[in-house]
Order: sequence, then C-alpha cells, then structure tokens
Amino acid sequence: MPEDTHLTAPTQFVEMNGVRYAYRRFGSESGAPIVLLSHFRAGLDHWDPLVTDGLAKGRTVILFNNAGVASSGGEPANTIEGCADHVARFVGALDLKTIDLLGFSIGGYIAQTVALRYPALVRRLVLVGTGPRNGELPNDSRIPPVAANPVPVMEDFLFLFFTPSAASQTAGKAFWERRHRRKDADPPSSPEAMKAQSAAIAEFRKPRGERYAEVRGIRQPTLVVNGSNDIMVPTINSFTLSQHIPNAQLILYPDSGHGSLFQYPNLFVTHAAMFLDS
Amino acid sequence: MPEDTHLTAPTQFVEMNGVRYAYRRFGSESGAPIVLLSHFRAGLDHWDPLVTDGLAKGRTVILFNNAGVASSGGEPANTIEGCADHVARFVGALDLKTIDLLGFSIGGYIAQTVALRYPALVRRLVLVGTGPRNGELPNDSRIPPVAANPVPVMEDFLFLFFTPSAASQTAGKAFWERRHRRKDADPPSSPEAMKAQSAAIAEFRKPRGERYAEVRGIRQPTLVVNGSNDIMVPTINSFTLSQHIPNAQLILYPDSGHGSLFQYPNLFVTHAAMFLDS
Repeated sequence: MPEDTHLTAPTQFVEMNGVRYAYRRFGSESGAPIVLLSHFRAGLDHWDPLVTDGLAKGRTVILFNNAGVASSGGEPANTIEGCADHVARFVGALDLKTIDLLGFSIGGYIAQTVALRYPALVRRLVLVGTGPRNGELPNDSRIPPVAANPVPVMEDFLFLFFTPSAASQTAGKAFWERRHRRKDADPPSSPEAMKAQSAAIAEFRKPRGERYAEVRGIRQPTLVVNGSNDIMVPTINSFTLSQHIPNAQLILYPDSGHGSLFQYPNLFVTHAAMFLDS
Repeated sequence: MPEDTHLTAPTQFVEMNGVRYAYRRFGSESGAPIVLLSHFRAGLDHWDPLVTDGLAKGRTVILFNNAGVASSGGEPANTIEGCADHVARFVGALDLKTIDLLGFSIGGYIAQTVALRYPALVRRLVLVGTGPRNGELPNDSRIPPVAANPVPVMEDFLFLFFTPSAASQTAGKAFWERRHRRKDADPPSSPEAMKAQSAAIAEFRKPRGERYAEVRGIRQPTLVVNGSNDIMVPTINSFTLSQHIPNAQLILYPDSGHGSLFQYPNLFVTHAAMFLDS
C-alpha cells in the first residue's frame, strides 16, 4: 500500500471533551511525531507540500486544526493559552506521549505556550515567522485589511508572505500553485474563528510581566526560523526569541518574508531535519 | 600518497610585491578553493582541525597569514583595506581566479572588504563572529587586557570565545586540545603585528558615511554565523550584517560566543558546506 502524502492523507477526526478535532497524519513512523500549527485562519491545506512531505520522510507529520478552525468543531479559543490547551487535549486524544512541535506565525505563539504549559509533552520546538509575547509590532497599515480579505487570493499572500523582489515573488507563485494541488480542500475558517484568533493575537502582543522573561522558561531545544524581512511578525522578533530561549538556534533566510519556509522549502526541510534528528 | 590534513600540510610561502606570505593548502581539488582569514594575532594554527579538515572534504582549504602576521614576512597593514589588498595580492600570487572567503572576527572585517574592493575575486562569503564597519562595540572592560595577554593561555580563550556555561566551557577545552595537536607550530605574532591589527580594528569601528551602507554593496551570497552571546563582536552585529547584505543567510548557535564555529565544529561544517555547495 503506498504511503499517504500531503495530497492523499485523508482528513481524520478525533473527539476529546466534546470537541471534534480535524487532522491529517502521514509519513514515516520512526522518531517523534511532529505536530504542525498553522498561521492565522489557516486550515489543513495551508502548508507547502514540499515542506510537509519533506519532513514526513523522517517522521510522522500531523497537520492540525485548532478548535473551531476550518474543519474542526468546537468553539474557537480567543486566547493563546486556550489554543495551547486544545493542542494538548488533541495530542492526548491521539495518545501521543511526546511530540515535536512546529508553529508558524500564530502557530508559533501557540507552540511556545504549549512548551511552557505542557513541558513534558514537547521534545523539540520549531518556531517559524513568529515572536515572543509583547514583541515588536508590524507597522505596515496595509497588512490588517489584506490579512482579513474574506476570500484570500494569491496577491494577498505574495504581499504578506514574500518580499517585493522578483525572486521572492516567483517563489511565492510557485508556492501558491503547490498549495492548491489538493482537490478535496479543507473548508475556510469562519468569521468567528478569525475573530477569536485576532483577539488571541492582540492579547499576546500586549505586555505581561517583564518583557521576554516568559520564553526564558522554554527548556526544549528550539529552532527559530524566519525570512530576512518579515513584515507581519517583524524579523527582529526571531532574533529576540533566539536571544532569550536558553537553547535556541536561529536561521534567517535571505530576501524573504513571513513565508520563508515556503520560499526555501527544501533548504528549510534540510535545516529542520538536521535540528530534529540531532 | 595520503592527502595532507590540517596537522600535516606543510607551511608554504609565496612572494608578491616583496612580501613573503605564509600559507598552508590541503583538501579536495574540486570546486572553488576557500581562503580562511583568522582572528586577531592568529597564525596558521589558530583554527579547529575539525573545521578545516571538515571543509577540506569538499574543497581546497587555504590557511593564510596576512603580511607581518605570525610566519608571514612584510610590514603588517594598519588598516582593514591594507589587509584586504594583501589578501588580493596573495590570491593573485597563487594564480587563483575565484575563491570563497571565510573570515573570522577581524578576518571577517577583511573578508567583507575584499568582497567590496575585489568583487570579481570572491564567489561566496562566510562571515563568522564579525560585524559591519561602525558596528556595536563590546562593553566588557576585561576583554582588551585578556586579548592582549603576551602569551595567551587556555583560560583566555575560554573567557573570550566561549560562554560561562559548563557545556560551552567543556567544548572550549576540547577545542584547545585539538588546536594544539600540531607539533611544528606557527610562531606567535609580533607585538608590531598586534599593534597594526589593533589600529586597523579601531579604525574599522569608527563611523564612515551612512551607517551600514557599505555592506549593502556586497553582491556575493553570504553566510553569517555567530554564537548567541558573542562578547567580543556582539551578536547583534551578525544580525545587522544579515539585514544589510542583500543576499545573506544568518545562523546563530545556542549558548555560544565568539568561537561558535569551534564549539559546534561539525554542525558549522555541515551548514557551511550546504551553503558553499548550494
């Protein structure tokens, strides 16, 4: 029987505490499974098959929709802690003892928080295009309306996730094509899910206690990745994460933005696999 | 005939414009050769054999003493431009058309300057534990006297190149042992060489024109590497380099200082080879 891939893995569901979580699972059964936490409003299709299938060569990849997001049931959480609690419940429902966790953007906020609230659950952490609580804010006023576009189009992603350079834009178009190869796409997230996630992001961006003290408590080996010019979660936040998480490696890719992992999917997979397997 | 290695490659000399440059050359003949530019007062032995032999598996490695440094003849240059001109003359004397250039610390100042002054000579650039002109300065008053210790001892390097953590100190001691395996060691640099290099460093740390504008002119693909906590050329300078060099990848290693490439020699070689071969 051929192994499932990003394009063929069926959407599955598991229920815990009355919430029906949607996920897909594929890849090698060796090693710790890695759970992927996606960006704002994203569902199970909002990854790059080159990234997910690349990672799946060396481990089980689990794509996950938080409560109330895309095909998952339940109420969407309006705090990052609430989202993190759903991740822990979902992992418990799958009866997994230890996972690696890759969080992208808001998924990175959630991944950090899972590592802090459920330290025994997380073996290693990969934080992409993200930042610490109360990090430096984006300052391009075009971002909020584009990010909230009711029906996102390619041009939105080319602006939000890539740089204006010809090379980055070309990479962005190729990513967009790869991202839409799956025919039985996950449904888009509801306006309620977007509203709850927006509230969670806004709360996480506010001060709480000493700035950056929180991430000093992360004990997991951590890989922090971003593009050189992320306009959504400014790149300096990745540097800050790497300065405060006690055991963090930082990799920044050239001429790239928030979606650096989709601009350099093969390089990212190689770097991430080196880190996860070391 | 067995291939030469870091420990067996003979010191050779080549003369150009009346200066007798010392170097060692070993490794695979495939691909672009890589010239290594070393740290303040360092000679041909001041590298980690795991790094040099590791790089040599995929390319020719050339260790080089600038004019007046350790076993090289001639007057030591007291500007970074002067040091860069010596590199270009040395490469010309070896009749090499294109090289990769790895510069560590002051060697990174020189490597940038070679790339800017002789752009056709340099294919790719690796900048380790270094920073741009007029970068952020070190602020630990213990550094200058330790760095100028007439006879450097292990404790100096454990302080200057590694962090206080047990893991970093242990890695530093292992590096020190590896660094001293060669019996026919290169002679130490003279006080005059140290004085000239100190003047060159001091001049490079002063403002000249718009801050960080200079490195925007570097056209070579560049890999910037450092430890998370470099006290000699503070780590923020590596971030700054990666933000201003148009095509730069940044890698920062956890819990490490100026000598991060000697703390993680195998990881560094893997990352550097991936970059050089890509």
